[in-house]
Amino acid sequence: MLNVEKIKVVTFDGDRLNETEDNAAVEYPLTIQLDGEEFATMVCSPDYLKELVIGFLASEGIIRSINQLAALHIDQDKGFAYVELKNKEIRNKNTVSKRFIGSCCGKSRQFYFQNDVLTAKTIMTDMQVSVKQCLDLMNQMQEQSTLFRLTGGFHNAALGTKEQLLLSRTDIGRHNALDKIYGHCLENRIPLADKVIVFSGRISSEIVLKVAKIGVGLLLSKSAPTSLALKLADDLGITAVGFIRNERLNIYTHPQRITQSET
Amino acid sequence: MLNVEKIKVVTFDGDRLNETEDNAAVEYPLTIQLDGEEFATMVCSPDYLKELVIGFLASEGIIRSINQLAALHIDQDKGFAYVELKNKEIRNKNTVSKRFIGSCCGKSRQFYFQNDVLTAKTIMTDMQVSVKQCLDLMNQMQEQSTLFRLTGGFHNAALGTKEQLLLSRTDIGRHNALDKIYGHCLENRIPLADKVIVFSGRISSEIVLKVAKIGVGLLLSKSAPTSLALKLADDLGITAVGFIRNERLNIYTHPQRITQSET
Repeated sequence: MLNVEKIKVVTFDGDRLNETEDNAAVEYPLTIQLDGEEFATMVCSPDYLKELVIGFLASEGIIRSINQLAALHIDQDKGFAYVELKNKEIRNKNTVSKRFIGSCCGKSRQFYFQNDVLTAKTIMTDMQVSVKQCLDLMNQMQEQSTLFRLTGGFHNAALGTKEQLLLSRTDIGRHNALDKIYGHCLENRIPLADKVIVFSGRISSEIVLKVAKIGVGLLLSKSAPTSLALKLADDLGITAVGFIRNERLNIYTHPQRITQSET
Repeated sequence: MLNVEKIKVVTFDGDRLNETEDNAAVEYPLTIQLDGEEFATMVCSPDYLKELVIGFLASEGIIRSINQLAALHIDQDKGFAYVELKNKEIRNKNTVSKRFIGSCCGKSRQFYFQNDVLTAKTIMTDMQVSVKQCLDLMNQMQEQSTLFRLTGGFHNAALGTKEQLLLSRTDIGRHNALDKIYGHCLENRIPLADKVIVFSGRISSEIVLKVAKIGVGLLLSKSAPTSLALKLADDLGITAVGFIRNERLNIYTHPQRITQSET
């Protein structure tokens, strides 16, 4: 398996030390060259690299659709992705990761990066999902995530309808798992207004921004949210549901999309 | 509490939906201005910001000691840290996050960032710690981490001798928690050859590199390692111990520092 590697370990089993073998997550550095310049190095699980690069570039505000790419070539051995944009003068290249100082009007004052102001959309979907469907979708993702059980080192992200998961991706990085989903959606032009995102990791501001950019209104997570993430989710029209475990869950924002009984 | 905020939540308790209040981790964007230029924005828990900035700059290879700082001022309301270096011509500023392409000799071939090649030290300490001491140190950290129990959203890092923890820091970001420890050590010139680092998060390559830069030879974690992290730990002379829970643990590298009985 590409994302897992055998390692040697001395394990203490409560009684004595024993030499044995175990599995560990592979961590793979991938550097993106954008129009001939080094743009970023990410550390990831080495599957679905093309989807990852596309999703990452979209998350960073470099592209908004697959049509803006002139070329994308991945050298898996060297750990490089060579990207050429059709429009080389794209202005966002210089605003990536630059601090945004909010004024008192316009878009959310919670934004802290300039490119997020330009690319995160407010979600208007009126879809509804029942509590039971939320619990079911999380169970579906958990059942698929054999890698986590093997090594304990992975995050999962999935795209689904309210009935079932359509697509599941795994990565050592929370953001990467979601970028792989994003890249797949862009590459395959998947309509997103009626979809949900299911996620194993914490709901941080960056995750909420990514979900808004992808264009999905429902984020279901197994983990805790941060308060900034919830302010952003509130502003961006995203229903954030967290701590989905043991037949329980917490709805933090836009609860009108979650119903107690079947929809 | 600075790092936690009250939020509203609609919770499903297995039976019905109820409106209630809960705690969430605060996520605070802090932008570092280095000699007047925007250098990086990190998202963190808003305590010990000076230590965080110092530790971050050291991790990134910008400084090696507190003496290299001419000034450091934090504007907590605006979320900015203004840093001035004594030597403004410092060369590393342009190599931060730039990909390192390894040659076949010299330092570890596992490095992927140029500044890591310059700053990560190989650790030579011959200290020894018993299995029981490892378990005790992890328990000490867990007992102190009330924030995690409150909100489920924090990582912890601590510095200790082999008998007890000296210093514990918490953050929503794994790296930040460790950078706060690093910053404190630099600011207070703490000798590190006989210390251990105790950590709640995953042992990734970046964490191992940080531990090597700090100059500590023992990394004790509650979580899983990646295979790249273990290659780096092996090369850099760091004993990496993971999955410390339920009276068990795994020793991955340089096991000679861990003894079955008391030392």
